[in-house]
Amino acid sequence: MQLGSIEAGGTKFVCAIGNEDYRTLDKVRIPTTTPEETLQRVIDYFKQYPDLKAIGISSFGPLELRHNADNFGYITNTPKPGWQNTDFYGTIKQAFDIPIAWTTDVNGSAYGEYVVSTLFNEKVDSLVYYTIGTGVGAGIVNNGEFMGSLGHPEMGHVYLKRHPEDLDFAGICPYHNDCLEGLVAGPTFEARLGISGQDVPHDHKVWDIMAYYVAQAAIQTTLTIRPDKIVFGGGVVSEWFLDKVRTQFAELLNDYVAVPPLEQYITMPNVKENGSATLGDFAMALKEYNR
Amino acid sequence: MQLGSIEAGGTKFVCAIGNEDYRTLDKVRIPTTTPEETLQRVIDYFKQYPDLKAIGISSFGPLELRHNADNFGYITNTPKPGWQNTDFYGTIKQAFDIPIAWTTDVNGSAYGEYVVSTLFNEKVDSLVYYTIGTGVGAGIVNNGEFMGSLGHPEMGHVYLKRHPEDLDFAGICPYHNDCLEGLVAGPTFEARLGISGQDVPHDHKVWDIMAYYVAQAAIQTTLTIRPDKIVFGGGVVSEWFLDKVRTQFAELLNDYVAVPPLEQYITMPNVKENGSATLGDFAMALKEYNR
Repeated sequence: MQLGSIEAGGTKFVCAIGNEDYRTLDKVRIPTTTPEETLQRVIDYFKQYPDLKAIGISSFGPLELRHNADNFGYITNTPKPGWQNTDFYGTIKQAFDIPIAWTTDVNGSAYGEYVVSTLFNEKVDSLVYYTIGTGVGAGIVNNGEFMGSLGHPEMGHVYLKRHPEDLDFAGICPYHNDCLEGLVAGPTFEARLGISGQDVPHDHKVWDIMAYYVAQAAIQTTLTIRPDKIVFGGGVVSEWFLDKVRTQFAELLNDYVAVPPLEQYITMPNVKENGSATLGDFAMALKEYNR
Repeated sequence: MQLGSIEAGGTKFVCAIGNEDYRTLDKVRIPTTTPEETLQRVIDYFKQYPDLKAIGISSFGPLELRHNADNFGYITNTPKPGWQNTDFYGTIKQAFDIPIAWTTDVNGSAYGEYVVSTLFNEKVDSLVYYTIGTGVGAGIVNNGEFMGSLGHPEMGHVYLKRHPEDLDFAGICPYHNDCLEGLVAGPTFEARLGISGQDVPHDHKVWDIMAYYVAQAAIQTTLTIRPDKIVFGGGVVSEWFLDKVRTQFAELLNDYVAVPPLEQYITMPNVKENGSATLGDFAMALKEYNR
């Protein structure tokens, strides 16, 4: 059985063919140019596979996910030039009259991690996935379904208690200044220190400041969703950084509610090499096919 | 058809009999003393109604809600003296072999507001209910179901960006100092000003500080759950205070995601006189009966 995955990012689209065991059989990278050109190349790629049974799409947003909306399937008011109000789902659906699943990039990653958790013998009914990279985004899977009546989660933009040694930093979010994204996205290293994150030593105190904020994001999620697991991906995240996050998380939570051992609860993705979304797309495609 | 409601609070239990239209036919208040005495009086009350078909319980917590837990149905590590590890559900279930629904007080209120929203011609698939009184609690209904894999929401204890004119206030939460509850629960008026909230004039700047924090709670919920509606109840909340909250919410959100008109989105309960939980209990009882 052939299933398709479209992981749509601001700089590249990753398209892949997989099977019902979520194994990747083929994969291509397509640079993100104009919607017309990019989506045509996506269509051309999948047209090589006439036996394709379903496609899962996880895309940069914001997206319209509500089936009853006139513009269901659109990328809506994205800052990405040229991509505002792009009928992504509709364009793919017109080219391939097969079941197509449609969600955000981070929801796709969350779904991939949710699905593979069983392969790792974890009992995960609900999972939150954060990506901390150029921006900060989050996806939620709750009992196999995505969260949100009015739209998808945008937890990258919540407000946080400021770290006492970071009060002078204004934050870089163009909408909210010092929301989560404004305080911990990758470009904050440049903004705070004038150097890029990869050049900041592990023992620099900025990592503790970052961990304090990321831990608060985990606290908010823990006390709201009460998920089985919180996964952090994206270029800013590493195992040693998550150790700092776990330490701060424990202090901030102060045992108020019970959570699993923190090295199981707050983790990097099980799927390596940023593959969570592709795997999630295959699983979403299969689910849509079986619906 | 006779349905029972037990709304269990730290100072009193409100027990009621209702019908399948959620009309209250009878109601009593029982002071909260020891678990043995209080639950016996609850049982004695409902024993007067041999035709009782189901009971909904919404209780102060924390509670064990997971059906697969050994202590399902217990009030667990509550600070309320004498009530730690009380088998609330089991005691009622043993006395009445009928369907019994079991959740937190704020989940019960959330469910009541969720159910009546249709009577007010609102399209509400998901709803968050906060109570701001002696403490701060929150319940979530998402597509008719309560939220939480590991337990119930505890969003009263999230951290927030501190108001610049309130940085010296330490907060009153014994677990977290300046979490939401530590900054806006009723007793914070005494702690900040030495007078009780009802004696603080509406134009006092502390109300703006409080509104700033409550608006952030609404922001967190909005960006995480993307609910159709957020309801605020409890002694601290009033219509004029929510006006302040709406103003701060709009500033903090900065149109980042679309929400309904704020006077519909951020509201006081539709059910008057703190009746949301009783109505929610009847609805939960009916749902359990029909399950």
